[in-house]
Order: sequence, then structure tokens, then C-alpha cells
Amino acid sequence: MAEQTKGKPIRCKAAVCWNPGEALVIEEIEVAPPEQWEVRIKVICTSLCHSDFTFWQLKGQPDFPRIFGHEAVGVVESVGEGVDEVKEGDLVVPFFLPECGDCADCKSPKSNICGKVIFKVTGGMIRSGTTRFSALSRGPDHPSPIYHVLCVSSFSEYTVVDVANVVKIPSDMPPDMACLLSCGISTGVGAAWKVANVEAGSTVVIFGLGTVGLAVAEGARIQGASKIIGVDLNPQKFELGQVYGLTDFINPKECGDKPVHEVIREMTDGGVDYCFECVGLASLMSEAFLSSRPGWGKTIILGVEMHGAPISISSIEILKGKTVMGSLFGGIKPKSDIPLLANKYLKKELQLEGFVTHEVSFQDINKAFDLMLQGEGLRCIIRMDA
Amino acid sequence: MAEQTKGKPIRCKAAVCWNPGEALVIEEIEVAPPEQWEVRIKVICTSLCHSDFTFWQLKGQPDFPRIFGHEAVGVVESVGEGVDEVKEGDLVVPFFLPECGDCADCKSPKSNICGKVIFKVTGGMIRSGTTRFSALSRGPDHPSPIYHVLCVSSFSEYTVVDVANVVKIPSDMPPDMACLLSCGISTGVGAAWKVANVEAGSTVVIFGLGTVGLAVAEGARIQGASKIIGVDLNPQKFELGQVYGLTDFINPKECGDKPVHEVIREMTDGGVDYCFECVGLASLMSEAFLSSRPGWGKTIILGVEMHGAPISISSIEILKGKTVMGSLFGGIKPKSDIPLLANKYLKKELQLEGFVTHEVSFQDINKAFDLMLQGEGLRCIIRMDA
Repeated sequence: MAEQTKGKPIRCKAAVCWNPGEALVIEEIEVAPPEQWEVRIKVICTSLCHSDFTFWQLKGQPDFPRIFGHEAVGVVESVGEGVDEVKEGDLVVPFFLPECGDCADCKSPKSNICGKVIFKVTGGMIRSGTTRFSALSRGPDHPSPIYHVLCVSSFSEYTVVDVANVVKIPSDMPPDMACLLSCGISTGVGAAWKVANVEAGSTVVIFGLGTVGLAVAEGARIQGASKIIGVDLNPQKFELGQVYGLTDFINPKECGDKPVHEVIREMTDGGVDYCFECVGLASLMSEAFLSSRPGWGKTIILGVEMHGAPISISSIEILKGKTVMGSLFGGIKPKSDIPLLANKYLKKELQLEGFVTHEVSFQDINKAFDLMLQGEGLRCIIRMDA
Repeated sequence: MAEQTKGKPIRCKAAVCWNPGEALVIEEIEVAPPEQWEVRIKVICTSLCHSDFTFWQLKGQPDFPRIFGHEAVGVVESVGEGVDEVKEGDLVVPFFLPECGDCADCKSPKSNICGKVIFKVTGGMIRSGTTRFSALSRGPDHPSPIYHVLCVSSFSEYTVVDVANVVKIPSDMPPDMACLLSCGISTGVGAAWKVANVEAGSTVVIFGLGTVGLAVAEGARIQGASKIIGVDLNPQKFELGQVYGLTDFINPKECGDKPVHEVIREMTDGGVDYCFECVGLASLMSEAFLSSRPGWGKTIILGVEMHGAPISISSIEILKGKTVMGSLFGGIKPKSDIPLLANKYLKKELQLEGFVTHEVSFQDINKAFDLMLQGEGLRCIIRMDA
């Protein structure tokens, strides 16, 4: 295949978003060959992450039309000049957070925020600023740019990513399971494993039991936490979450006048060792902080605050030896940690299957948006060949 | 001496505060013998810490008259039942933060917030709630209680503290230097050493170059920081601080319209590894946070917010791998760490001399308050025998 397409544009189907909040349109587009430091990938499957959904709804943004999708797995079709990390035919996972491998951050085990290549929510390729997607709807002689989203744009049969945004994974990794490691699950597991470094025997509370929150539970379970409390308005999430180690459940609607942090403090003899906020609400971030234990309680912020509101932290309470930490992608260093998580799955140490609650064909991609709007299930896998 | 006084009340001089903000009155009081788990100490010298000064000014508080003072050194006069950690004649440092040694927190290296014995700003002894000080000003037949402050009350020739609030130190430690380890200096050094665990070669910024802030510099210097930036409105503090490793100085008054965090980011290629807030202003805590480096920047809150205002943290900025931590007493576990710091001083690894800028006799204790009001110098040692 690659022999025929290498160095040439590829015409293929993509799900293009022409305006915020509008249904995606499956149409033929042209995908340019990878330039220097770039990799063109044939997508096998992709899934809808909540941040795509949030950006899709957000009004007043530039860079339309655009192609969403940043959870995916695929096979390398061809590579641009200077790329030797991956080659044609490799099974790869693309990811939104660049890892150049050269800067102080990439070289340090303490950071996963590359200091050289900065990720962009939308726009062109991260180094050149130009796009690799062209719309053909005005006729093949009038191609117009389609913008990339979160350095991945996997809602397309082919996509081009920077070499800083892709990693090879074991070839025996099932594609749908690999796809899960591309963002949400890695973020949750990583937050418990790499950011909080949850200790065996410790207590954990998770605000918000979506995919990321349940992945935090799975990470905490693997780390050996003894008590994992889930907080969610939907009690079905507790049933879903028990397989990932949830031991207790709090429905804030059933707490009466008592603040959730008081209920948690009573359940845990004064507070929890590790509190995770996975919703993205400043008020819940404060509740999470108040739920944390004096002496060594850590609050880990994973949710992107939906309204940009600041977190308000009691300046007295924090003096009791408490910590608040934030992270992108759960502190995951993608090039080393995604293959590591894939191997944990293959060794049956990491549970992934239950996170896939729905599957649709690429043609039906808008159903994945409907499911998320309805709050149904966890991950919906979108198969390009189905 | 102890043979004559043991088990009996001692009449001695104390500097009693009868009302908030009023000059202390040196008068004869009666100090009851130590009860179970208590230790009576003959104070050698004491010093005025800024939190005493803050509580002294604070209107509308209960528990007057009271005896302030929580930085001190003394000799054990006698001990109550059950006390075997210290004995008559031992050189000891009392401290405000109890360490029972038995609870989960005291047994863990991660916490210095005792879970069993809670420190009190004012009141009686921490276990019984009763006071050991009596005022005799209404005549010896009408003693009335004088309240304790911060578990120490060292502005008295004799005081009684809980065994959880005292530690033996090497007998060759000079008393004035030992006195410094009782609160402020240990807090600053501890914040750099135990809370932040500053790494060799790293960058540090300190907001507020009072005694605690300069002690943070000393701690960071010992840890091997390569750049230590001080931020203060008083440029003389930079001169004072160079001996403690300060390499750079920022006077916010000279930054024009540019926020201090921008100046700091420019000086440090994007932000500082460790940011310490030692003033106690929510707005400066936010500035400190914004000065911290993406990827692994830590902000350490030491200052007690004067108005109780919450800290406001950008919920987006924290996602860049940043951390905010608070601590009491710089994370110091007093019973092990104060003797350790004393030994570091004796081995000339820890510099303490420069922190003593003034000395007064006990009779002149109100001068120490005047000096602090004028922002003059660092620590003022108050000698009981002078």
C-alpha cells in the first residue's frame, strides 16, 4: 500500500466539523504526505474523549473546518524526513501531548510538559503551522485547509501527526484496547500512578466517575489502595466501578445538608490520603481539597475547569500539610509510559475491556456524540473499517 | 534549686499581656508544678516571633490575661508524672507544635501534624485545659488564671509545657542560637529541606525576606540551590540575605507595570522550580504560584494569611504539572529535627548568628515589640537573666 501512496496525497474519508456543535460531515478529503519530522497514519479505530466533546460545543473558536479526534490507534503509512523512531507498518498510538525527547522537561522524569514543542488545541502542524488536510467540497481544483485538533485529528481514515506525538506499541496489542491508552484511560491511571503515586493501603476519593475517574480507580487499585470512594450523581457508576476497585460510593444528592467533604471525613477518620477531581468544576476542586487529610493529604486536579474559574483554597487549611497538584495526561510520559501500559494490559495487570461500552462504524460517528451528550456509558469505539 | 522548688509553686517574674495590643506588664506570678506529662522549665532566653506579634495585635480574642512567647530555650526544673524523655537539668527547646510520638502522623515521616494532641493558640494546658499560671495582682489570696499561648508561653522566668512540646538539645548549644530553632528559623529551613526538598542546582524564589524567608534561603543554600531570588520591598534585606545564599533581588516597587511573576519568569527561562510565600498575603501566594515553572514547579505556602482570604489558583495553570503545598513549622518533626538542626549548627553547616540583630533584657521586652512594629532587624533575643 505505502509504495503506492508514499510521497503523494491520499484521498480518503474524514468526519469534518464545519461549525461548533454541528454534526460532523463524512466527506472525501485530501491528506498531504508527511513533511520533515511527521508521520502519516492509517487510522484503525478512534474514540471520542470528553475534551473533544467540550471543544466541539465551544462557540466563538477559530480554525474551522476542523477534524476532531485525539484517541486512536493506527498503522504508519509513511514517514517524513528525519523520522526514525517509527516506520511504515508499525502499530502506533498517537497522543495530544508532544514529547520531543530533547528538552529539559522531556529528559526529566519529573515533567511531561515538553518545553520545546507546545501542543495546540487547533491549528496547523506544531512545527510548520501549515495543515495537511484539504477539503475538496469546492471541487478538486479549489482545495481549502482543514485544521488539525489537539495534534492528532483521528476522525479521518488517514492523519498526519508530528513524530513527537506518536509511539510504537506491541504488535499483539488489540487495537481497540490500544486506542483507550491514547488519552482518557492513561490520564486516569497515570494520575494515580505517576502524579499521586498512591501508596499501598491508602485511602482514595474520586469526584466524577466517567472514564477518567474510573481509570483513576483502576490505577489506585493497581497501586494497592485499600479504600476507593467514588462520588457521582449516577449510582450506576458504582456498579461499573467495582471491577476497578471502588469500595464505597457517595451520591451527593443523598447527603442532605451535609457537605460531601464532611461525609468523606467521617468515613475516613478525618480525611482521605488522595483526592482526585475528574469533573472540571472549581467548586468540586474545593470540596476535594477539603476532603483531604491533614498531614499529607494530596488533591490531584485532572478536570479542565469548564468555565475557567479559579480554584479557591483555604489558606489556613493548606497549612495543615496539604498539597494540591495538577497534571496534563496524568503525568504520563507518552513515549515510555503508553507502551508500558500496553504491556501491563497484555500481562493482565491493567483492566481495559470494561471501558468500552459502545461501538459504532465510522459512518455513524455522530452517534458517539449523542451517547456522550446523554451521559451514556464510558468509551465508544469508532471503527474505521466497519 | 530543683530540690527546693520541685512539687511546689514557683513565684517569678513574667511579662503579662492584659489586653490585646497593650504593652506587656512585668509582674510577679505563680507557676504551678508540672502535672502528669508536663515539664516545668526555667527559661534562659526567648525571642519574639511574628505570629506572637500578630496574635498580640488581634482584637476580640478570649483568654486574657495571657503570657506570650513561643521561641525559647531553657533548663528543665522538674517534670510531672510519666515524663521520662527529659529530666531535671536538661537543656531543652520548647515548641508550639505537639509531637506525641504515638499517633499515625507522628509515626509517619510524611506528617508533622500530630493527630492526637492538637495545638492551641490560647487556653490552658493541651491535655487538661487548666492553666499553670496565676496572677497575684489582686493579692496572694486571690490568684486568678493567666492563659497559655501556643503551648509555650516563654515570656516568663518559668513556664510549664506538655512533654509533647519540648525536646532536649546538645548541652554545648549556645542558648541564643538554640532559641532561634524553636520556631521561625526551623520553619524556613524546614520548608526548603523537608517540605520542598529543594534539589541541588535548582532555582528558588522567596517572597518576603523576614526571618522565615531568609531561613528559607539558608535552607535552599544548604540544599545546593544555584539561584535564590529574594522579593522584598526593603532592599536592605538583600544585603542581609547574601550570606544565606541570595543571588538575586527583586523590589516589586521597581518593576513598573510588569507583574513580579513576569519578571521572575524572564529571569529564569519560564519559571522557578520552588516558590516560597513567607508574607501571608493571598495575592502574593497567587504571584508565587504564577512564578513557578511548568512541569514540576512547586509553590510552598508558609505565611499565615493575615485576613483569612483564600488562595486563588488558576485551574488551567495548575494543569501544567504544578503543585501548591502548605506546611506548619516547615514540615519539621520537632523531636528529631530540632536536635538535628542544632548539630548542623555545631558542625558549622547551618548559619544562625546573623539572625540575631538585637538583644534586650527581660525588663525591656516591650522594645522587642517596638522593633518588630518598625520592621527593624530580624530576631531580638530577650535574656531572662540580663
